[in-house]
Amino acid sequence: MSQLFVRTLRDDPNDAEVPSHRLLVRAGYIRRAAPGIYTWLPLGLRVYRNVERIVREEMDAMGAQELQFPALLPKEPYEATNRWEEYGDGIFRVKDRKGADYLLGPTHEEMFTLTVKDLYSSYKDLPVWLYQIQTKYRDEARPRAGLMRGREFVMKDSYSFDTTDAGLEASYQAHRAAYIKTFDRLGFDYVIVKATAGAMGGSKSEEFLAKLDVGEDTFVQCTNCDYAANVEAVTVPAPASQPYDDAPAAHAEETPNTPTIDSLVAHLNKAFPREDRAWTAGDTLKNVLVMLKHPDGTREPLAIGLPGDREVDQKRLEGQLEPIEVEPMNEAELKSFPDLVKGYIGPAVLGEQAATGIRFLVDPRVVEGTRWVTGANVDGQHVIDMVAGRDFTPDGTIEAAEVRDGDTCPQCQEGFVSAARGIEMGHIFQLGRKYAEALDLKVLDENGKLVTVTMGSYGIGVSRAVPVIAEGNHDELGLCWPREIAPADVHVVAAGKDAALFEAAEKLSADLAAAGVTVIYDDRAGKISPGVKFKDAELIGVPTIVTVGRGLADGVVEVKDRRTGERQDVAVADAAVRIAEIVRA
Amino acid sequence: MSQLFVRTLRDDPNDAEVPSHRLLVRAGYIRRAAPGIYTWLPLGLRVYRNVERIVREEMDAMGAQELQFPALLPKEPYEATNRWEEYGDGIFRVKDRKGADYLLGPTHEEMFTLTVKDLYSSYKDLPVWLYQIQTKYRDEARPRAGLMRGREFVMKDSYSFDTTDAGLEASYQAHRAAYIKTFDRLGFDYVIVKATAGAMGGSKSEEFLAKLDVGEDTFVQCTNCDYAANVEAVTVPAPASQPYDDAPAAHAEETPNTPTIDSLVAHLNKAFPREDRAWTAGDTLKNVLVMLKHPDGTREPLAIGLPGDREVDQKRLEGQLEPIEVEPMNEAELKSFPDLVKGYIGPAVLGEQAATGIRFLVDPRVVEGTRWVTGANVDGQHVIDMVAGRDFTPDGTIEAAEVRDGDTCPQCQEGFVSAARGIEMGHIFQLGRKYAEALDLKVLDENGKLVTVTMGSYGIGVSRAVPVIAEGNHDELGLCWPREIAPADVHVVAAGKDAALFEAAEKLSADLAAAGVTVIYDDRAGKISPGVKFKDAELIGVPTIVTVGRGLADGVVEVKDRRTGERQDVAVADAAVRIAEIVRA
Repeated sequence: MSQLFVRTLRDDPNDAEVPSHRLLVRAGYIRRAAPGIYTWLPLGLRVYRNVERIVREEMDAMGAQELQFPALLPKEPYEATNRWEEYGDGIFRVKDRKGADYLLGPTHEEMFTLTVKDLYSSYKDLPVWLYQIQTKYRDEARPRAGLMRGREFVMKDSYSFDTTDAGLEASYQAHRAAYIKTFDRLGFDYVIVKATAGAMGGSKSEEFLAKLDVGEDTFVQCTNCDYAANVEAVTVPAPASQPYDDAPAAHAEETPNTPTIDSLVAHLNKAFPREDRAWTAGDTLKNVLVMLKHPDGTREPLAIGLPGDREVDQKRLEGQLEPIEVEPMNEAELKSFPDLVKGYIGPAVLGEQAATGIRFLVDPRVVEGTRWVTGANVDGQHVIDMVAGRDFTPDGTIEAAEVRDGDTCPQCQEGFVSAARGIEMGHIFQLGRKYAEALDLKVLDENGKLVTVTMGSYGIGVSRAVPVIAEGNHDELGLCWPREIAPADVHVVAAGKDAALFEAAEKLSADLAAAGVTVIYDDRAGKISPGVKFKDAELIGVPTIVTVGRGLADGVVEVKDRRTGERQDVAVADAAVRIAEIVRA
Repeated sequence: MSQLFVRTLRDDPNDAEVPSHRLLVRAGYIRRAAPGIYTWLPLGLRVYRNVERIVREEMDAMGAQELQFPALLPKEPYEATNRWEEYGDGIFRVKDRKGADYLLGPTHEEMFTLTVKDLYSSYKDLPVWLYQIQTKYRDEARPRAGLMRGREFVMKDSYSFDTTDAGLEASYQAHRAAYIKTFDRLGFDYVIVKATAGAMGGSKSEEFLAKLDVGEDTFVQCTNCDYAANVEAVTVPAPASQPYDDAPAAHAEETPNTPTIDSLVAHLNKAFPREDRAWTAGDTLKNVLVMLKHPDGTREPLAIGLPGDREVDQKRLEGQLEPIEVEPMNEAELKSFPDLVKGYIGPAVLGEQAATGIRFLVDPRVVEGTRWVTGANVDGQHVIDMVAGRDFTPDGTIEAAEVRDGDTCPQCQEGFVSAARGIEMGHIFQLGRKYAEALDLKVLDENGKLVTVTMGSYGIGVSRAVPVIAEGNHDELGLCWPREIAPADVHVVAAGKDAALFEAAEKLSADLAAAGVTVIYDDRAGKISPGVKFKDAELIGVPTIVTVGRGLADGVVEVKDRRTGERQDVAVADAAVRIAEIVRA
């Protein structure tokens, strides 16, 4: 410890939002270099390397082959797949001295595809599974939580290449199994959920989410069946269409000062009470106007109709539209459509064929025959008994409404979903033939015919795993690393001032090292009190803390389990052997 | 081999200039992604990792601590040391979505300095030696020779921090010793030479050059003493000044049509013959005009006076002026100085105080009292008996003249230097206090006084080592890796069609793997002939090639040493044991 390049901090760093970030900085594992860009100090690098080793071992064990692409990549392959444009502000772009365009790779589908095309030409070469563990770059709009969402980070990305759909499914399942082994070894609590493919394209996709309250993702699980999905991937089951032969004609009514759902519902119950049941927000159709911002910067309006008891979930909405970003419609844009009356917007003016020409997509619950109270496009008026499919026809449906605890499970339709937070640690995709087609990756099949290859893409957030593991392995005193991840096996504390004590501690550390046990030895003398040393040991979080202190007079050292706090005295004479056993248990 | 992601090529790639580049591409170790930017295929990555491991082991063994900075770095620290500007076109610059400036780190002095400043505050913390093995970026004007001069490459860079000059010297020597161990293990022929500090600043500096004819650097060694230096660092010993009391006054003479040194010497010997000896080029003073291009783009003229028998060595000149680049003076620029008469330029109009105002630096050999024939600044005229210090006074001296085989050794001044080519594999610098001063890195000394820290900077070209080792370890058939670097220990070839033969080869491979020997097993069946397999094995260059072929009928396999070509038959029964012994010998 007197030589280790580390300084622990008593106070939390100002910019740390989550416990793992606070503790990794305080315990001297990482330092911020720029927003979303971090330095691994020696302790942090050791932990990171342990994670990397586990990931590599499991990838090798499944039979994937490691290679390494550059991080600085030419533009052309990304143009061929349109991602040069689609990524928009999300990537770092670089010009070289000759003015040629490059990007810092956010993910490498294009490069892998081109390299397989370069080397392989026959179905006999396939399947092949290739991976790299590599520094990646994304210019995140909002980097946060230290290493959890950084702008420079390390990913393990792998890719499978097959000729058949069945082959792709097998490659996908092999990766899924390897990921389960990997995440089990990394020692955090996770759930596998259905996911959207987003900007990657492709069809089937699942995420491995670490269950963490500080996570950015929301996922739902069913109380009854095995359904689990990222909320972005939840598809609301459309109810059956309803008969509406006996529905009264739609009728506009005066509803003064009711620009909000709450004020509208209150007014309905007062002015137009129903006999069978009160009006609720769920009886109203809310029409939300947003602007879609395309990667090339152009903006386009969109109207979303959804039951008044639900909000638009921005992440779900953007999940459907990626790489398009969604922004609110501003006042000027609203005013450019004179048919839109704020607070009283209704379907009559919405849709590509209607007065405004604004594309109008509705929640899947808005099926034919459902009746709604909705805006009349006149200030202070709403229409009652507005029937979908009779009085208005949307341009389509969209999954934009929030998912709530207690919603019916989309899979079994019996249980109810409950939501929790998580963070993406792994993502597996069946990309299909999108990239192979764009880059013309074909091989000869058994009959000598050229066939387009089908691909899978699989990622693990390697550097992210460090804060995620820390998040799940700490207490009020500091970090408590799982043994396979810890920066050392044992933290030996020389607690006292006696020279004999330092000698004994040093000998024990040397004996442990000789036995292949990695040791952090706190040899600091002078003004550093035993209390400070203990605090540092707890903060740093090595799993076994050995104190060489007062007990030495009685021939014992104290061995403490950092996580449980259990202590035991061990005879100095066989301390190294006993501690090595504990470490290997 | 049927599954390994590799394809060997029979033909040389078009862009490969040197043997290592040709062979690494042909044998399937690397692929070009963009100019100066390469992908490591699985075989290449294994070799690269072996190099990295050796470098890391030796850095750890010397007591240096590993950490890892980001590659994407904020501008500010590099502005504080002026390198943001000095690097000019030589670095990749990036703007993030908010318009903030970043660079892709070419070297990390600033970041290390700031981090030590962040963590440390006392002389007791020092010395500290820190290193990283990291991907670096330089926007080279002329990337070449594959991985030898790339734009994305891996360096091990380390930095030492001391309070005293003696401490810095000790840190420097410790790195020097570790580098000797490292390069000895990497297995290539190298020489340690004096070097210039270049853009890094600082004083003492040495380079470890791999001796290679394809290298970009020229170094000289003395035939008599231990002097060795990069030509850029050679300092020409200035002769003693000479008496010139008896020298005739300088006299301009008609020398029509003598704009070149050769034509001038011929004319002198014809029109002004000397009795004691003939005129030679060494009697003339040549004045070369160049333009200095500063990193900010401004251009400034410089005149260099040197004996007419020597050319200006651009690399030596730029080595003195870094980060300034040197370009020829163009016609328009020449014409802007009416006093300059092309072919007849002389010192009378040169110098900051003279008519042109052009800074005038001379070769160290042009000492006071030396007599020269030089331009008279009149078309067709030269001045004879022009005495330095009497008839002209330069603004200073500069090491810009070429160094030639046979020049007197600057150190012992008895032997002669001889030149050879090499490529920089390591560079060690005593930076001194330049960076610590710029970034205000101070610690408290024994007396509680703040002192500025003194630093060393030490680099190894980790990815470059792969082609350098390949360059020194190949023959006409392919690569011949040193054992510690090779992508595998043994290459087993199943040479034939018999199923029993494949069984035996597979069992042998499995037995070797079980004994901890890494194996490439060529299991390819079908149309791949034994000849093709042997060619691939020779090309890939694993040190031991085992053939399971015809000998199997007699109960033997053939074990061949790739480098020497020696073959021996080994009984199948104990082949795995015997081969493991050979591998470990």
